[in-house]
Amino acid sequence: MQTENLNTDRTETRVVLGVDIGGTSAKFGLVDREGCCLSGGSIPTGAGRPPAAFFEDLCAAARRLLEGRESLLAGVGIGAANANFYTGTIERSPNLGWEYVDVRAEIGKHLDVPVAVTNDANAAALGEMLFGAARGMRDFIVITLGTGLGSGIVANGSMVYGADGFAGEIGHTIVDPAGRVCACGRRGCLETYCSATGLCRTVQELICDTVLESELRSSSYRDLTARKVSEAAGRGDPLALAAFESCGDTLGLKLADAVAHLGPEAVILCGGMAAAGELILRPTKRSLEKHLFPIYRGKVKVLPSGLGETNTAVLGAGALIWNALGEA
Amino acid sequence: MQTENLNTDRTETRVVLGVDIGGTSAKFGLVDREGCCLSGGSIPTGAGRPPAAFFEDLCAAARRLLEGRESLLAGVGIGAANANFYTGTIERSPNLGWEYVDVRAEIGKHLDVPVAVTNDANAAALGEMLFGAARGMRDFIVITLGTGLGSGIVANGSMVYGADGFAGEIGHTIVDPAGRVCACGRRGCLETYCSATGLCRTVQELICDTVLESELRSSSYRDLTARKVSEAAGRGDPLALAAFESCGDTLGLKLADAVAHLGPEAVILCGGMAAAGELILRPTKRSLEKHLFPIYRGKVKVLPSGLGETNTAVLGAGALIWNALGEA
Repeated sequence: MQTENLNTDRTETRVVLGVDIGGTSAKFGLVDREGCCLSGGSIPTGAGRPPAAFFEDLCAAARRLLEGRESLLAGVGIGAANANFYTGTIERSPNLGWEYVDVRAEIGKHLDVPVAVTNDANAAALGEMLFGAARGMRDFIVITLGTGLGSGIVANGSMVYGADGFAGEIGHTIVDPAGRVCACGRRGCLETYCSATGLCRTVQELICDTVLESELRSSSYRDLTARKVSEAAGRGDPLALAAFESCGDTLGLKLADAVAHLGPEAVILCGGMAAAGELILRPTKRSLEKHLFPIYRGKVKVLPSGLGETNTAVLGAGALIWNALGEA
Repeated sequence: MQTENLNTDRTETRVVLGVDIGGTSAKFGLVDREGCCLSGGSIPTGAGRPPAAFFEDLCAAARRLLEGRESLLAGVGIGAANANFYTGTIERSPNLGWEYVDVRAEIGKHLDVPVAVTNDANAAALGEMLFGAARGMRDFIVITLGTGLGSGIVANGSMVYGADGFAGEIGHTIVDPAGRVCACGRRGCLETYCSATGLCRTVQELICDTVLESELRSSSYRDLTARKVSEAAGRGDPLALAAFESCGDTLGLKLADAVAHLGPEAVILCGGMAAAGELILRPTKRSLEKHLFPIYRGKVKVLPSGLGETNTAVLGAGALIWNALGEA
């Protein structure tokens, strides 16, 4: 293990390393100040890999990306579930099997550059602010619709981390205290209705409660995915369409609450399930407008991600460190 | 109308004028940098008084307060419903009968000092931050329980005003989309359950739904006040006690949502109804803790106002302008 200062006074283009650490792999890439991802790759995270070995591999991979490039590494930004901006740690991450990792210290063993860490939804919000749909905005909310529902909040131009780094859990606001059981141990959390998983649960509810005809009645819950629901909806499947309507209704209701807290200029929907586009945007917009406190009506935009469909999480992690460096 | 620069280079103590404009009267006072209210008074606002006349009287009263004092006026802070920090205006204020008032311009006709304007709940939050229960905190929420439910949010040490100055309407987050009709035209807003009015409505619900014995069964709704409910609860009245329990249950549920957005260090309860003390604090704390997303449990304080029972709104308005001057 060798510490190497890559941040010398050469005159090359400055880049940062953006890293998105997921349950099975970590994607990474060199991101410049304009939000271009210059090159990238991925390494595995799963199978109980010890963090020290993972971060050694990550830093070695970063060096290989820089080899032969006229680029100078200015910092490393990391997005991961359960990552804390204030402490620079990843704690109790069930997907990674990591109990406690001091990310800044691990990377510091190999690379002598500033490191910033936050959760994936906060990184997405910074990505939208610097390079995407929230450019020029000072007050907005990013919602990531994946397996769960993540959120990142920007107020007065700054990321809201809260008193101890854990703000922005809109996925765990409560739709109905007697509602669906959530993995967090409570009932009725927004993400049990509005997320890829929530959409599949809603399909089951509609199979039970309605007599709507649907190809989804032939699929087991285990075989069901948000993509299948989306494809069925694209073919006009009434139950699949109703599931998206229901999902948008609930999301709009709770986003109206979020607006009543923060008065944002826009809510931006990102993540795998947001790729369903108008299927989810349209009912969400309609429900939001219906449930908004009158002074906000007609003022809050609901927008799709402005980061495209590839590298969004890597761009977000890159934005995190550019933002922390005060250079973007 | 005479413009007078009171901010000369004399060496007296600097003070600000804090003004709380209510539907029937405006209270005001000179507030120093330590949050002491040196002297004060009030003038009427009601009966469709034109704003120009009101602000002329207010500025004349301010001059009288300063007469003979070794004090130099550094600014004016104003808290009022429907007041906007960004624009310096009060707009569509049903209580005052004012359609549109440029407060900074009106005061500028008489006093040549900086003026800051915001709604009463935001002023209360700044009062708590500078002089009260939130001293030293960077992330907290203030809830004012009066006729309605107001809120002021501070994140990263800054007041959250939102994109156009109207953030912080937690009173209009939705408890139940099919619930109680709200003055805002929607249904189920938090303030229809948790406020002086909400408490009285809950008493009616309990008179209807339960067979609890209560002296409140002898009172008409028109004669009922939160104070009467509080006094009955103090005498052990089972229905009055149940009304406070219900109010705290609902408030705790929605505060758990607020915490999931903002991850604050504390929630501070102010305003007339908060004077009921443990009657409202205890069920609110219990419900909040029960409904919190696990990572926040045991971390979020629920505190009474630290500003005492008199002059709180005037101190808040004073804190607003000290904060805007960057001097507190």
